[in-house]
Amino acid sequence: MSEAKLQGIAEASSYHMSPEEFRRHGYQVIDWIADYLQRIETFPVLSQVEPGQVRASLPPHAPESGEPFANLLADVDRVILPGVTHWQSPNFYAYFPCNASGPAILGDLLSSGLGVQGMLWATSPACTELEAHVLDWLGEMLALPQKFLSSGTGGGVIQDTASSASLCALLAARERATNFLSNKQGCDGKLVAYCSSQAHSSIEKAVRIAGIGSENLRAVEVDADFGMRPEALASQIEQDRRAGKLPFFVCATVGTTSSNAIDPVKAIGEICRNEGLWLHVDAAMSGTAALCPEFRFIHQGLERADSYCFNPHKWMFTNFDCDCFYVADRKSLVQALSVLPEYLRNKATEAGAVIDYRDWQIPLGRRFRSLKLWFVIRHYGIEGLRHHIREHVRLAQEFAKWIRADPRFELAAPVPLNLVCFRLKAGDTASQELMERLNRSGDLYLTHTKLADKLTLRLCVGQANTEERHLVKVWARVKEEAAKI
Amino acid sequence: MSEAKLQGIAEASSYHMSPEEFRRHGYQVIDWIADYLQRIETFPVLSQVEPGQVRASLPPHAPESGEPFANLLADVDRVILPGVTHWQSPNFYAYFPCNASGPAILGDLLSSGLGVQGMLWATSPACTELEAHVLDWLGEMLALPQKFLSSGTGGGVIQDTASSASLCALLAARERATNFLSNKQGCDGKLVAYCSSQAHSSIEKAVRIAGIGSENLRAVEVDADFGMRPEALASQIEQDRRAGKLPFFVCATVGTTSSNAIDPVKAIGEICRNEGLWLHVDAAMSGTAALCPEFRFIHQGLERADSYCFNPHKWMFTNFDCDCFYVADRKSLVQALSVLPEYLRNKATEAGAVIDYRDWQIPLGRRFRSLKLWFVIRHYGIEGLRHHIREHVRLAQEFAKWIRADPRFELAAPVPLNLVCFRLKAGDTASQELMERLNRSGDLYLTHTKLADKLTLRLCVGQANTEERHLVKVWARVKEEAAKI
Repeated sequence: MSEAKLQGIAEASSYHMSPEEFRRHGYQVIDWIADYLQRIETFPVLSQVEPGQVRASLPPHAPESGEPFANLLADVDRVILPGVTHWQSPNFYAYFPCNASGPAILGDLLSSGLGVQGMLWATSPACTELEAHVLDWLGEMLALPQKFLSSGTGGGVIQDTASSASLCALLAARERATNFLSNKQGCDGKLVAYCSSQAHSSIEKAVRIAGIGSENLRAVEVDADFGMRPEALASQIEQDRRAGKLPFFVCATVGTTSSNAIDPVKAIGEICRNEGLWLHVDAAMSGTAALCPEFRFIHQGLERADSYCFNPHKWMFTNFDCDCFYVADRKSLVQALSVLPEYLRNKATEAGAVIDYRDWQIPLGRRFRSLKLWFVIRHYGIEGLRHHIREHVRLAQEFAKWIRADPRFELAAPVPLNLVCFRLKAGDTASQELMERLNRSGDLYLTHTKLADKLTLRLCVGQANTEERHLVKVWARVKEEAAKI
Repeated sequence: MSEAKLQGIAEASSYHMSPEEFRRHGYQVIDWIADYLQRIETFPVLSQVEPGQVRASLPPHAPESGEPFANLLADVDRVILPGVTHWQSPNFYAYFPCNASGPAILGDLLSSGLGVQGMLWATSPACTELEAHVLDWLGEMLALPQKFLSSGTGGGVIQDTASSASLCALLAARERATNFLSNKQGCDGKLVAYCSSQAHSSIEKAVRIAGIGSENLRAVEVDADFGMRPEALASQIEQDRRAGKLPFFVCATVGTTSSNAIDPVKAIGEICRNEGLWLHVDAAMSGTAALCPEFRFIHQGLERADSYCFNPHKWMFTNFDCDCFYVADRKSLVQALSVLPEYLRNKATEAGAVIDYRDWQIPLGRRFRSLKLWFVIRHYGIEGLRHHIREHVRLAQEFAKWIRADPRFELAAPVPLNLVCFRLKAGDTASQELMERLNRSGDLYLTHTKLADKLTLRLCVGQANTEERHLVKVWARVKEEAAKI
């Protein structure tokens, strides 16, 4: 409701917020966020509310009449903040990070303000062209193989998450393997997909969604460092072929969620090439490291992949959602996902001169997400991004040293980049208690996994603002709580 | 890069934008958007650039060093704006609208600033609880059946688009129909789904993705008003059963994309109940109308549906992405989509006391989208939302009257709400030329479809700021260009 109306000054013919009101309230929200970022370390990282507590503070019914904007902001403080787990706190080490940064937030704000829907090139050419262009930039920045760039047969697209990217890869692979018949006739239970036992749960979810069935997903065994064993993959494929199955898809992981293990992409790629299987590489978290030449070993063998994804919304300071998904042959992807009704036909599409990103993803509609990525790359420059990635890796390696040097603890896996997996030698119960004490304190937040059947704590150094002083404090707190157990 | 560093004042240990820099640049972006909204009618609605023009203005490689924020904003004006089709212009009548509004943009900005990832209740309780709560509010506001509210066996969730909502509905239906075996064993080509020949292309896309196969989607014939013929549905189901197929899913549309036709949900629901089929109702565009009691006829029979969706990002002033998806039995949906790895286990989930929305959607991660919806509802109030919806419907009805009264034109379909389908009686070539002339002029933007095999222009009155004066001008321009053909 216009504030004039709220104040009873005039009979409003519009309840919209006027541009001038937007300007005023916009400043207030910007201030709120700047203040929040300044005081973020004062909050307990993990929200301390009980189930139902947030809802209990909300009125049971929607308001009949509009409310002043000040009420809304006040309720963000009163109702929302206590229920927030502070992913943007430098003391957030849980899961993988989900970073934001000033330029990303402001790029995304512009996207909201422009409010374009980029399903087709024609519905906003800049939305499509900036995305294709910035994804080519990024491909170069990570030294991805040329074939993934839009100048060749491939190209990149922004997906919401790596889950969706993997699903798109799987669908393109499914259609290529069945000569585009699965799309028409449906699946028949013969297709078989492969990933390691350490792959992300989204691969199993994608296999289910796509009508392949989880019983047709092979969890290939891993070596002592949790990387896929290529010979186990090869023998499983052979076994499946003998059983009359149709192997078609392998997902290799560069930086698994549990331990940051890196599958041997080169050896896996060789098998895929010989066997005619689609190779998708999921580098959701770790791909960002390839900005730095010294970490590009993680992508060895990538020239044999058919598709690849990584998430700037994890470690590259770009707020959610922003997964970058690349394919070597965009035709397979487009042919797998395109349905063209009359109401979407247009001259640019018919001329074949443009990309229509609706055919590169599950949904039809899409927002202008490349703006935030463009802002991030231009604000930091390649040098700024590298600086922070190197610093995160250095801090994680530092932390790993401290763990190694303390006889009560052990590392549970190698530490190739910025994830440290550790545990108390005293066993699962002690490690679990340590985690709960730390998280309950609000000083930091970390989460767990199981490695070799043992409960393992995961500390991921990737939140944008984490500095050495934070890690020093974490280590002090870890030792302090461990001493009490 | 910190601006201090850019100015060579100090050796930066951080390239992040500081909170104070964020505040300053944030004001600039807010100003940019406020100014854009004020001058939006001065731009040609449909972007006039040629393919490749935007990319040609961008440097071929990413910058090595960071750039000042002013450069970024300047390039938005120089490079991006010419390539934008102005979805937020009141002269945008194409497709369906994709609205934004002040409170929505600012709610979304807060979501970016908080930067939480709400995959689990535990990863930010407020993100989950506000969403469940606001979707209950909305359910009441639309007078949806009780079973869709979270207080009963159902509940609502925000999806990116209706495409994804329909896919989730299809997957839940697939699993219910096969006793959750498709997830394990994959599809077997027996399942058959139904929608009308006028349903959205996303239904065919979902059927393909889910491994059902497009040959197993029946496009049921429609009546003269483009609504599904229930008796045709019933006889198709019978025929499929006789052929040994397994009918399992019907999608009814409330407001088709081509003509805003409303399928007879009640009669279709009766068939679904008798036959044990899952009924999904796609009201992506038109659902918003049910905010007004006088338009609730569109939802007649909804109590027989298993799932329902509509998009506040189309007509309810909430910026993309925001589709509200409701299910009557959340267990089927969760069971269809849940995969729980060790690293996501937590006490709140195990206790069963909370919703984990990751199991209600395709991706794992999710942003805090309910904030913008909450802001919209509280800013406008139910009364403000109703005011604007009524006004849009009134204007569309007005426009339809003008068309009816002009002997050169004809309506191509009934006008139940805010979409007017019309054409020149002179035929397809004339109508096509009329559309191209209007769009090329930049004064307005509308798109086409085919109805009864004839080219038809679609004028949708739904952009937030469209007022009577805009429609009056459109009609003048339509007559003016028609006179030249």
